[in-house]
Amino acid sequence: MARRKSQRRQKQAFQQLPWRQPRIPFPPLKMLSDDQVEHIVEASLRVLEEIGIDFLCPVARETLRQHGADVDASGERVKLDRALIMEAIAKAPSKFTLHARNPAHSLTIGDNWTCVGAVSSPPNCSDLKGGRRVGNWQDYTDFIRMSQALNVVHFVGGYPVEPVDLPPESRHLECVQAMLTLTDKPYGAYALGAERISDAIEMGAIARGRTREQLKSECSFMTVINTSSPLRVDLPMLQGLREAALGGQAVIITPFTLAGAMSPVTLAGALVQQNAEALATIAYQQIIAPGAPVVYGGFTSNVDMKSGAPAFGTPEYAKAVLAGGQLARHLDLPYRSSNVNASNAADSQATYESMMSIWAVLMGHANVIKHGAGWQEGGLCASFEKMVMDAEMLQGMWEFLTPLVVDDAEMALDAIADVGPGGHFFGTQHTIDRFETAFYAPLLSDWRNFESWEEAGAVTAEWRAHAIYKQLLAEFEPPATDPAVAEALDAYVARRKEEIHGRAA
Amino acid sequence: MARRKSQRRQKQAFQQLPWRQPRIPFPPLKMLSDDQVEHIVEASLRVLEEIGIDFLCPVARETLRQHGADVDASGERVKLDRALIMEAIAKAPSKFTLHARNPAHSLTIGDNWTCVGAVSSPPNCSDLKGGRRVGNWQDYTDFIRMSQALNVVHFVGGYPVEPVDLPPESRHLECVQAMLTLTDKPYGAYALGAERISDAIEMGAIARGRTREQLKSECSFMTVINTSSPLRVDLPMLQGLREAALGGQAVIITPFTLAGAMSPVTLAGALVQQNAEALATIAYQQIIAPGAPVVYGGFTSNVDMKSGAPAFGTPEYAKAVLAGGQLARHLDLPYRSSNVNASNAADSQATYESMMSIWAVLMGHANVIKHGAGWQEGGLCASFEKMVMDAEMLQGMWEFLTPLVVDDAEMALDAIADVGPGGHFFGTQHTIDRFETAFYAPLLSDWRNFESWEEAGAVTAEWRAHAIYKQLLAEFEPPATDPAVAEALDAYVARRKEEIHGRAA
Repeated sequence: MARRKSQRRQKQAFQQLPWRQPRIPFPPLKMLSDDQVEHIVEASLRVLEEIGIDFLCPVARETLRQHGADVDASGERVKLDRALIMEAIAKAPSKFTLHARNPAHSLTIGDNWTCVGAVSSPPNCSDLKGGRRVGNWQDYTDFIRMSQALNVVHFVGGYPVEPVDLPPESRHLECVQAMLTLTDKPYGAYALGAERISDAIEMGAIARGRTREQLKSECSFMTVINTSSPLRVDLPMLQGLREAALGGQAVIITPFTLAGAMSPVTLAGALVQQNAEALATIAYQQIIAPGAPVVYGGFTSNVDMKSGAPAFGTPEYAKAVLAGGQLARHLDLPYRSSNVNASNAADSQATYESMMSIWAVLMGHANVIKHGAGWQEGGLCASFEKMVMDAEMLQGMWEFLTPLVVDDAEMALDAIADVGPGGHFFGTQHTIDRFETAFYAPLLSDWRNFESWEEAGAVTAEWRAHAIYKQLLAEFEPPATDPAVAEALDAYVARRKEEIHGRAA
Repeated sequence: MARRKSQRRQKQAFQQLPWRQPRIPFPPLKMLSDDQVEHIVEASLRVLEEIGIDFLCPVARETLRQHGADVDASGERVKLDRALIMEAIAKAPSKFTLHARNPAHSLTIGDNWTCVGAVSSPPNCSDLKGGRRVGNWQDYTDFIRMSQALNVVHFVGGYPVEPVDLPPESRHLECVQAMLTLTDKPYGAYALGAERISDAIEMGAIARGRTREQLKSECSFMTVINTSSPLRVDLPMLQGLREAALGGQAVIITPFTLAGAMSPVTLAGALVQQNAEALATIAYQQIIAPGAPVVYGGFTSNVDMKSGAPAFGTPEYAKAVLAGGQLARHLDLPYRSSNVNASNAADSQATYESMMSIWAVLMGHANVIKHGAGWQEGGLCASFEKMVMDAEMLQGMWEFLTPLVVDDAEMALDAIADVGPGGHFFGTQHTIDRFETAFYAPLLSDWRNFESWEEAGAVTAEWRAHAIYKQLLAEFEPPATDPAVAEALDAYVARRKEEIHGRAA
């Protein structure tokens, strides 16, 4: 019913708040007492000293051995003592700049700054009319366009959806090229081996008019290093981590500690394991590249007890988000969390679970919010409508994070006196002077009364989000790119594809 | 599509968390600095000293005059100085017990306790199949049944929907009777004159097996006193307030300060006016009944700049909620806020706006959450599906508010050692021992994977909520009522109806 009627909806100009990187004015919300933080840190250090962690990379193990780790000669196990770990991590910066192609879109990662990345890595995508489908190049680039168009999105954290119609060996070249030409925001790359990271560095240098050497001191993208929980880091991740760290690019170390599956069923246990995996991996990064930018990532959530499926945006997730922030700050490192939900549709569940995540993430002072816009279905599907819903929720939060002004003009004693008991403020000068900009203007919420809303087609938020995403794409104009840069990127991609496919054949 | 398929959904047992009254373990989130609180309080005292407030009740004005207020002899204006106000309010309790018919459902109002009331006062109601309609007796009692069945609902705050098929002069008798027999939770009554409050006291005394005199020291319901902002309190409200206060029943003093309409367009100005209206009305209540239970209510929100309609669950609303809590605590009084949204449907907008409200309300330490379950459309419509959505969101928050345990068993070092790097926790004893109760179990969220969800009919959260509400009503059993009590209530209602309609005719 809503779908049919949506065609009658009058088109309105798309409006959103201007781009800005928000700061969180509130003190971080604490889930753990200071003692509890100490207990978890102590237990995680004991895990690394007594149980150890598998690093599936001979280079990494050898490096760690040389720095004093106890490395199993016949296997992959590495035991790290606390002095080694803490000495290494002490070299990590507590804050760094993430440089964008457009300097106005560069970001501060740390302190009480926060920023939002688009959804990344789902194999599927969906919209209300087209339904759910495996991702392709058209969908991929449409999500990249949306990431540029929506001001709440600060960076592209990876592929919003996997474009499976491109060959996997060279897909990263076109994907990064699209990020670097369809947006002027910081981009993302996957640490699946050294090669993809190396290409991302080269291409970022071209796009930003820098040399590879210059990029070493100008972090231009972030890549996520997921551990293979429990207590294992795979070879491609360690190779990618090394390439990024040596190239001066930020790594977000994120253990994938799903309580009851890849970590203990208890939240405290999952946090101990999360911290152990993060400590070991960050220590390795700082040993090979002291002072390289790094972010402590938390992704602890729980499984659904009925189906065994991962659940997100749950009470346990919110608790883990707050606790994770405390563990990151204990190391004086920036913190990464995510805007997640487990709904199979862009419906009420999707938004209440997302709001659970968003509030927890902001109250827990996440400096980097991955999967901030468009995530659905526990990360298995990117949704165009959900991306618009997330934009609304997030820009509303930016407005909420803006401090209140309390001065004589705002307290309006004169206006209160003028209007007097029983009067009305609609027509007073104090109101007229401020009315147009006094309040948050939504991009998705419809605040008309029921009769007006019904008359206009009774369009629910889901279908309004659909119309907005279509409108955004129809109106999209890519940011300016120097033709010489575009050409150089084309040439780089062409040459590398030839190398890769020649080699693969 | 979802509607048709929903009929194929397999019926599952309804499950929810047990009834409990939660406490908020976090410190209150502050929107205002201590200085800003002082400025707002100072300005609101100046409003009452210099501008004054209209009390449209000769009895109230005379009482205030006798206590030293500056009362306009020829009009309704009352000016109150700060000493008079603060001396009176100092007599109010910072905490009180709200007694339920079932003592297990009694509530503590104050400290860091919170509690939730069902939606109250919409003229309309809706469900997905029946659509939007003017409320009637069947809908009214169905909402009352839902309020009893859902454990997140702690009290009935008023009529969840107005039963317009009952005569307005005597409607309150059947309405209160339904609250007192279909639920065993604290009830609500409207302060529209003294008579309705007097009847509510009498009926509560019957239901609880007490005398009217005993109820004076056993607060059994709360009634809301809305000011007619700006700076006016109407006659029926003042009469109802007096009857409740003298009868020992709690009043929730809630200015209706919609920024840009009934108050200044600036939030600071709206808060000044809110505080002024609350101070004057609470002072009056404490003058006539020192020590009587009272709650400081905040309802400040803003209008939609496009349509002029009230908006709720906005960033401004969240800010006002936090600031209102600070103003209430400044007076050492319990605080009331609300779970609100302005959506015209039980859709994504309804839940993201509600979650904005719920988080703000809990972070701001609201002791009483009015309209906690079922509110939609800025209060003009009660929704059966939204009531189920609210139950899910709120019980999830209750779980979130439960502190984390961090001890050896929960940190699970032994389990981490047993499973070891690269293992899996599904089958370990540590998991098996805890799996069934480890995590929050949702009542509405569906966490199955997409394929299972699609196979089961691809039912969105809205239609799942519909099925749950139907199931709750089908399974409803009223709480036990002593037949003698039921008979006494019947007799009271019959006698009073005869009095009222005889008199009206």
